[in-house]
Amino acid sequence: MTLDKLLKPKKICIVGANEKAGFGGDTSRNAIRYMPEGSYYFVNPSRSEVFGKPCYESIADLPADIDMAVLCTPQNIVNDLLLQAAAKGAGGAVVYASGYREAGTAQGIANQNALRETARKTGIAVMGPNCAGYVNYPGRVYPFAFLSEERDRKGTVGMVSQSGQLCLSLMDSPNMRFSYIISAGNCDVVQMEDYMEFLVDDEDTQVVSVYMEGVRNPKKLVQVLKKAAEIRKPVVVLKAGRSEKGQNLAAGHTGSLAGSDQVFDAVFSKFGVIRVNDLEELLYTSQMFAVMKNLPQKPTFASMNLSGGETGICADVGSLEGVEYPDFTEKTLAKLKELLPAYASPSNPLDMTATLSYDTEKYAQALRCVMGDENVGMVVVGYTLLEEIADPAIEYMAPAMEMVVKEPGAKPLAMMPFVGNTRNPQYAARLEAAGVALLPPPVYAFKVLRYLADYVKYRADDHDMNVALPGDAVGKGRVAHSESESKELLAKYGIPLTQSSVAKSEEEAVGYAEAFGYPIVMKIESADILHKSDIGGVKLKLQNAGEVRRWYNIILENAKRHCPDAAINGVLVQHMIPYGTEVIVGVKRDADFGPTVLVGLGGVFVEAFKDTALCLAPVSRKEAYAMIDSLKSSKLLKGYRGSAPLDIDALADAIVVVSNMAVANKDTILEIDLNPMFVYEKGVCAADAVVVATRRLV
Amino acid sequence: MTLDKLLKPKKICIVGANEKAGFGGDTSRNAIRYMPEGSYYFVNPSRSEVFGKPCYESIADLPADIDMAVLCTPQNIVNDLLLQAAAKGAGGAVVYASGYREAGTAQGIANQNALRETARKTGIAVMGPNCAGYVNYPGRVYPFAFLSEERDRKGTVGMVSQSGQLCLSLMDSPNMRFSYIISAGNCDVVQMEDYMEFLVDDEDTQVVSVYMEGVRNPKKLVQVLKKAAEIRKPVVVLKAGRSEKGQNLAAGHTGSLAGSDQVFDAVFSKFGVIRVNDLEELLYTSQMFAVMKNLPQKPTFASMNLSGGETGICADVGSLEGVEYPDFTEKTLAKLKELLPAYASPSNPLDMTATLSYDTEKYAQALRCVMGDENVGMVVVGYTLLEEIADPAIEYMAPAMEMVVKEPGAKPLAMMPFVGNTRNPQYAARLEAAGVALLPPPVYAFKVLRYLADYVKYRADDHDMNVALPGDAVGKGRVAHSESESKELLAKYGIPLTQSSVAKSEEEAVGYAEAFGYPIVMKIESADILHKSDIGGVKLKLQNAGEVRRWYNIILENAKRHCPDAAINGVLVQHMIPYGTEVIVGVKRDADFGPTVLVGLGGVFVEAFKDTALCLAPVSRKEAYAMIDSLKSSKLLKGYRGSAPLDIDALADAIVVVSNMAVANKDTILEIDLNPMFVYEKGVCAADAVVVATRRLV
Repeated sequence: MTLDKLLKPKKICIVGANEKAGFGGDTSRNAIRYMPEGSYYFVNPSRSEVFGKPCYESIADLPADIDMAVLCTPQNIVNDLLLQAAAKGAGGAVVYASGYREAGTAQGIANQNALRETARKTGIAVMGPNCAGYVNYPGRVYPFAFLSEERDRKGTVGMVSQSGQLCLSLMDSPNMRFSYIISAGNCDVVQMEDYMEFLVDDEDTQVVSVYMEGVRNPKKLVQVLKKAAEIRKPVVVLKAGRSEKGQNLAAGHTGSLAGSDQVFDAVFSKFGVIRVNDLEELLYTSQMFAVMKNLPQKPTFASMNLSGGETGICADVGSLEGVEYPDFTEKTLAKLKELLPAYASPSNPLDMTATLSYDTEKYAQALRCVMGDENVGMVVVGYTLLEEIADPAIEYMAPAMEMVVKEPGAKPLAMMPFVGNTRNPQYAARLEAAGVALLPPPVYAFKVLRYLADYVKYRADDHDMNVALPGDAVGKGRVAHSESESKELLAKYGIPLTQSSVAKSEEEAVGYAEAFGYPIVMKIESADILHKSDIGGVKLKLQNAGEVRRWYNIILENAKRHCPDAAINGVLVQHMIPYGTEVIVGVKRDADFGPTVLVGLGGVFVEAFKDTALCLAPVSRKEAYAMIDSLKSSKLLKGYRGSAPLDIDALADAIVVVSNMAVANKDTILEIDLNPMFVYEKGVCAADAVVVATRRLV
Repeated sequence: MTLDKLLKPKKICIVGANEKAGFGGDTSRNAIRYMPEGSYYFVNPSRSEVFGKPCYESIADLPADIDMAVLCTPQNIVNDLLLQAAAKGAGGAVVYASGYREAGTAQGIANQNALRETARKTGIAVMGPNCAGYVNYPGRVYPFAFLSEERDRKGTVGMVSQSGQLCLSLMDSPNMRFSYIISAGNCDVVQMEDYMEFLVDDEDTQVVSVYMEGVRNPKKLVQVLKKAAEIRKPVVVLKAGRSEKGQNLAAGHTGSLAGSDQVFDAVFSKFGVIRVNDLEELLYTSQMFAVMKNLPQKPTFASMNLSGGETGICADVGSLEGVEYPDFTEKTLAKLKELLPAYASPSNPLDMTATLSYDTEKYAQALRCVMGDENVGMVVVGYTLLEEIADPAIEYMAPAMEMVVKEPGAKPLAMMPFVGNTRNPQYAARLEAAGVALLPPPVYAFKVLRYLADYVKYRADDHDMNVALPGDAVGKGRVAHSESESKELLAKYGIPLTQSSVAKSEEEAVGYAEAFGYPIVMKIESADILHKSDIGGVKLKLQNAGEVRRWYNIILENAKRHCPDAAINGVLVQHMIPYGTEVIVGVKRDADFGPTVLVGLGGVFVEAFKDTALCLAPVSRKEAYAMIDSLKSSKLLKGYRGSAPLDIDALADAIVVVSNMAVANKDTILEIDLNPMFVYEKGVCAADAVVVATRRLV
């Protein structure tokens, strides 16, 4: 679906135009205030003029064709108006009306279905319903239902939001500028993913900024995010649902698929999408990307401040938020010692003292010196820019910054205040024009800078972006395979497993045991018994034939006694491998995004501390290493306190192989669970395994 | 030292008054603008008038006595002026001059010492040097070196800061109001702890707000914080040094004792001091306490918002920051269902939808309903108050809030915006006057609310505040005791230990082993060998007399071979206790605050994850439980995955006993290390122990 007629119309009509307060009146006011003369018509059967401009009785009466109609009318006449608009050439429409799905009634659902059908028939791309419209700033198109303070908001952040209220809040911030701001409403025709695609493709948009509650079209979302990653256009997303309460709300509010929040994180992380926590982070992160003329080459920062107290705050909050301050080189330190007063002791973060800030040339020298340090990717100047300039330091600092950022090889520069405040609009505009990003106070600022660092570290090539999305025909069954069946499936893909066979008699058990070598583990073999230990179905450390015989019988008896209905295949005889460091490798199929692969350290780390990493399949080798690295407990694999480092390469291999198996069976395998898998100094080996699928696979 | 003449003077003189830009001129301007006529004199030998007011040639010429002198002069004449001021009755002085300790030169140190001596001789309480002065808002005293925007800043937050720059930033925020704001400078005479004491005692100050880099007088700090805790006056502290880089900066900047940051946390936590991360948190936390008319009875919150998107942000950010949203009772839910539109689904956080916000009476009903819920301690309304009121909702909401908070049994109320912004000053003033705290955007706001919750949870009675501060005569020695000596010391205090004795011969070793019962552990016994295992000095699981004899000799030989110079007492024979869950209990003596007690789970949790809790001795029983509870790994003690819960009571006892021992020996014991101590389903037992002291204690 092309959205050009909806979002870049040459002519629009506003149906229900009037002069009162409310959607129709305010849309009319916005058109007059912001849109070029002749680019909009007013339509209202009961008026001949609106604010002194001609008003037509109906769409049919318009003197020329239109690209798009804004319907400021009640729900009951919307479909009829869409037909009329289509007859006049419209390919897009904005529908403000409520009374659809969001009403939560049968009538609402019926209205939604009728709207969809009309849209399909007419080919009109409908925004909404139950939305506030949009603004196209570069094109001066303003079909928007609310008034806000008059101010130049044209910029390069393309924003789409499932909440109209949040759109309005962003427009109210004097610190944000847009290419588009779109209140998407119910998204019953044009969906979030369609708007995102438009913005990723749009040349006026440098940053795509999104508030989403859920996803309707996972396939499209993946396509759009992949494209953005490939062309390196930043996508910043605020998505509800990080907490359980937030997830319930998101599910309830728009009826979107809220999905598992960890799966969304996995989607975002695969495509380098920046996920933020609130509107303020969304605003500042987006605007920072829009203002910066180039990205840092390294994800490291230098902090330059005018006082020790401020420098301490930067050191502490930066470190808490995970921002990296490299040490300055000896060369930088030597130069700074020349520039700064004798009592200053240069380091990063840097307390410059206030002296240099009243001398443009010297301040520029200090900036150049810090920027020139090979360890530094970006410079952050701490300075609280007030609306009323009381301290004149900025009069000297601003020209220095403007000068230095234009010099060849200059690195990105940002400015951060220490208290939230109004800020001087002239200096703010000057600095942003020079490419200096203006940040919020420290706790927010350092989050924003960490997002930037993460974005700088992201490489599309490290990720396998061919997501194994679910096919059309996924079975409904759910079949657990026994340990031996599961291992048979896993063995085909080359996952390292313990040697084992199913014995149907004492004799067979002893035969296998002698062949594998002692010690031996024996386990009941049945797809119907998942918790084998609980029923006395497992015996470890058997050392000779006599023990094997004895336990063959005991295990079978225990199983028959506790699970009389279970289908029992025999007893699994298995060589007992030495204990290593336990990990869990698992797969769970997400209904929207297909298989996801999980890794975590066994024992308490997964269970008590939830220290796990999740990646959308297919998992590339680099993604597998990144998963392992992201575990807090991974330090236990890396040679902790003098113990030898374990075979992380083999673990990464195993993760990739499990991922390959999940992708190859994406519409049948529901779960894979290798628990425990032991990691050794050389190699890994899974001691137990379960595969669950939509049907029996062996 | 009384600070009344310094901080509450009836008459002051400004020495170096003039009309130019700079400290002298700006202090004169501030005096004229803010101070009552007749409460200040100007002094300057080269002027007869300043801004049309009479100016005296010297302090001696003043027509009346003064309480305080502001010296806007260079360093070299300060001491002489202090003598003159003393002769005119002054008991306080503000010294702006720099050129003291902060210069980092020998001359600077000499100047500092001379200033101290003059202050001592004259009895003058000197603020500074190298400071920006202070403002006493209720008393209209304004000896302050900088100009800032003219605005009513009178409030009840008493602020003292070691950074003048940070004072200025706080004054620049339109959202903050003060009783006092004090730029303490070098604190060479009057120290931070003195100002804090003044503010804790001051009736115009409801909240004490502090930026500190370090401590000069730990004893005074402890006294002041204890008093504040007892009278329940909130103390909010921004202290540099949370990160290593921040700690280096704090140490370098003012030459204060930066101390160990964890020890500061322990001090703050004992006295219920709120520690914040940056200036913005300091500002909003302090101002919230100042505005609120009463504290929540419970540390739980209800969040009420006008849209689903905003509600989701509150749910997610609140949960991430650890704010507790209790479920509403059935009664509340039923009432809300009546009040809200049919499609709303009430829960906490609550999406009220926008409908009620245009009806004062209904909005008040909803507020009352949520406030009345027995699970709720405080209500937070989400609403972005803009400077220009575009959406009129606030016109209906504000009167409702004003009405409800005045009703009997009303709970505290706050309002939180979703983007940082200017805010309408009239509504802001109205709401604050009604006791409604105005918060910053969510990421900050929920931190501030968590600080409030922590403060509400704090009970002075739970803490033993008789801190075992170091005595005057602490020895310089450092003597490690052998395991058996250490255990002898510990046994006196009743710490549960393994049974053990030192054998001097094979025969003795066997004798002890037979008496204790097998299995037996043997270890080399020497104060000079700390890492016994590394030199083959430990043998576990000895099962009979033959093994004991054999290992007695092997252990001695290993020790002699690896540590030929060690003094060896024999071999420690010890009953081998069963393994339990390992914990570490330790003491380390802080040079400023005396013994601190540490607990953590053994193995990887302390070493790899730094999951430890630290408490300033003496540790009360409640503090011991709180320490255990604060460990992330404590879930492993509490009956994890069906295993029986371990004896946390016995562990808490052990912590208290170790603390008692440390307190009783506060000037001799430097370290105690019980590692490992095993925790069982019943009881605890330390398997190894080291005591380090300034001298041999056995």
